[in-house]
Amino acid sequence: MSKKIRVNGREYSWPIQPTVVVCVDGCEPDYIEQAVNAGAMPFTAEMLKRGADLRADGVVPSFTNPNNMSIVTGVAPAVHGICGNYFLDPATGSAVMMNDPSYLRCDTLLAAFAAAGARVAVVTAKDKLRSLLGHALPIENGNAVCFSAEKADQADLETNGIAEVLAFVGQPLPPVYSAELSEFVFAAGVRLLESAHWDLMYLSSTDYIQHKFAPGTPSANSFYAMLDGYLSQLDALGITLAITADHGMKPKHDRAGRPNVIYLQLLLDEWLGAGKANVILPITDPYVVHHGALGSFALIYLASEQDADRIVERLAGTEGILEVLPRPAGCARFGLPPDREGDLIVISTAEQTFGTRPEHHDLGQLKTPLRSHGGITEQRVPMLLNRRCQRIDPAVKLRNFDAFFLALNSV
Amino acid sequence: MSKKIRVNGREYSWPIQPTVVVCVDGCEPDYIEQAVNAGAMPFTAEMLKRGADLRADGVVPSFTNPNNMSIVTGVAPAVHGICGNYFLDPATGSAVMMNDPSYLRCDTLLAAFAAAGARVAVVTAKDKLRSLLGHALPIENGNAVCFSAEKADQADLETNGIAEVLAFVGQPLPPVYSAELSEFVFAAGVRLLESAHWDLMYLSSTDYIQHKFAPGTPSANSFYAMLDGYLSQLDALGITLAITADHGMKPKHDRAGRPNVIYLQLLLDEWLGAGKANVILPITDPYVVHHGALGSFALIYLASEQDADRIVERLAGTEGILEVLPRPAGCARFGLPPDREGDLIVISTAEQTFGTRPEHHDLGQLKTPLRSHGGITEQRVPMLLNRRCQRIDPAVKLRNFDAFFLALNSV
Repeated sequence: MSKKIRVNGREYSWPIQPTVVVCVDGCEPDYIEQAVNAGAMPFTAEMLKRGADLRADGVVPSFTNPNNMSIVTGVAPAVHGICGNYFLDPATGSAVMMNDPSYLRCDTLLAAFAAAGARVAVVTAKDKLRSLLGHALPIENGNAVCFSAEKADQADLETNGIAEVLAFVGQPLPPVYSAELSEFVFAAGVRLLESAHWDLMYLSSTDYIQHKFAPGTPSANSFYAMLDGYLSQLDALGITLAITADHGMKPKHDRAGRPNVIYLQLLLDEWLGAGKANVILPITDPYVVHHGALGSFALIYLASEQDADRIVERLAGTEGILEVLPRPAGCARFGLPPDREGDLIVISTAEQTFGTRPEHHDLGQLKTPLRSHGGITEQRVPMLLNRRCQRIDPAVKLRNFDAFFLALNSV
Repeated sequence: MSKKIRVNGREYSWPIQPTVVVCVDGCEPDYIEQAVNAGAMPFTAEMLKRGADLRADGVVPSFTNPNNMSIVTGVAPAVHGICGNYFLDPATGSAVMMNDPSYLRCDTLLAAFAAAGARVAVVTAKDKLRSLLGHALPIENGNAVCFSAEKADQADLETNGIAEVLAFVGQPLPPVYSAELSEFVFAAGVRLLESAHWDLMYLSSTDYIQHKFAPGTPSANSFYAMLDGYLSQLDALGITLAITADHGMKPKHDRAGRPNVIYLQLLLDEWLGAGKANVILPITDPYVVHHGALGSFALIYLASEQDADRIVERLAGTEGILEVLPRPAGCARFGLPPDREGDLIVISTAEQTFGTRPEHHDLGQLKTPLRSHGGITEQRVPMLLNRRCQRIDPAVKLRNFDAFFLALNSV
């Protein structure tokens, strides 16, 4: 079939078989490498011999929403607009959450395919992503489903294109902070493909395990063994399968297990006086148990442009800070929308995170030593396919948001 | 004693006891961590309990000469001028080697202390560093020695302040590519301190082992066990001891053991046509067996400024390239001298290196899979002291070129 779909400046081939992209949240490449080496992923080990074992760069900030939206739109946040969980609305001066599709500035490739007649299924772990991922899917005509594991019990035909999901998947409603929340997503994917034809499917898990356990640990290997089982079932259904991630994950604590935090608002108030700088941490979301809103990417809004140069210089010399970029340079480098970024973009080293002030972060919620993401050091992710594929161009950086392009055009 | 020495804008306390800085070439922090964990460095393990176990950032480019010169001057290459092994002389348009002290733009703290009456000893592994490190030392008055292990057999009183070094150290002349070249440096340090009083000593080894063997391997642990023995002997002499490194070291090869190389000159000629861009690899030196002149830092000189923007953009999107910075931004960020840098500064990812063209790199000389340095990913180094010390300012990045300052002022 030579039908092509153009969306956001890229041209995708019509799927010749069901095409599934799995986004394993927080999947630092080392998780899979170590699980494979430990013998915990026998299917994956075999798949990589006959398929493709690539690495790709995700979007910086290496957060969940910007990357998931890049994967389903095929473009950078500069185009789709979702550059974090929060941004500072210049019109009102207040921080607003970007989990509503009204902040999305382009179509998803899923919606574009669906509009051309493809059957599209989306399953996500947390409900926060559902409305963004499912934007403009024609749920009403029965050719699309989109639901979350978190609210699987509330799914209905009108909103999600499917009802009675718990019975359909055959698993109880999983707790929001659990490995089972991800397992439910993978199991749902298998059940959907077993019960009907789907042209495109997107499965997006949660990084609960990755925030808690390092690569190669028994808990991590057990999670990946579970994933391996579902990947094997998906593969057996004769589909094209691509596995990637939104971001990696790094330990961000000292030897005593205390989180490494640079309290940026505190620091800037000390340097400039109160009210001169406003720090936004776009990792902040309602699910704080994972990371206490501590990540490796922060935005600084300055009251006066005149403070910019000396603050850049002082931050660049601060222990634990990898990069300080003024808005134009940072947006150009990372492909970010300038109207939703701070005057300064600050990125920490691998082992550090940013907070605002100690009293704004409830570190008591962190039950294990902090592991988190957001920076350049969590940008590298796997890109694994169950088919041999042509690299788009080996000299050009492969991005995680090339996943659908690779699976549709290069296999 | 309250005597102070001011040099290059910093004020150093006069040593109250012999003060020795050891620069372990290519010492990625993991080498020591793994050797300590394996029980190969019993003295160091004990020393770190009573001393200081810090980390510091070296200079980018993370090469030997810029970092050694920063350590002995206490300042960045923007001040001392030695920003690589080679630079392109704008006056002549040709690449010139910077191993002559005429390229040095400030005093070393060693020479400043010696001028004030301190007895100063410098031992380096390779002779390429000797004349830079020993610049302006008063060899003639008998209060300074400066020699290399490589040419220990040729040392004489007039040039080096010492003769008959092989007999003095009690070891044969080591091969230039060997672990023994470094061992000779450490052994010479011990012998010098045993036989006379020295106020300041600088010992600088070679990264032969680190280029060949990963942290934790038997050969690496054996090298660090050897180092541990000499550190123990130095410590027993009642000195203040600081151990740091010029740069780290990362594997830069694929799974088959082939070096990962971006041939930048080839790429630029393809994009721009021949003669429009000139690539300089400042890692190039006469000792190519280590790294085949392949490192993670490159300079690009462009015939026309008008090419800059599109080349920056295209390189930034190229697989394996971490950063592309125009000269002003790169010099500001890394503290480099603008008149000795290219129009563009290019830095590769941890696992990549830059070459010019395949025919200019004799990869046959690489006997083991390539490990190299030069980039930001090899900037982190240990900073270990045998005494408790105050961090200069815990919020400000500690640099490897704070080693003498820490040992003299903060212990």
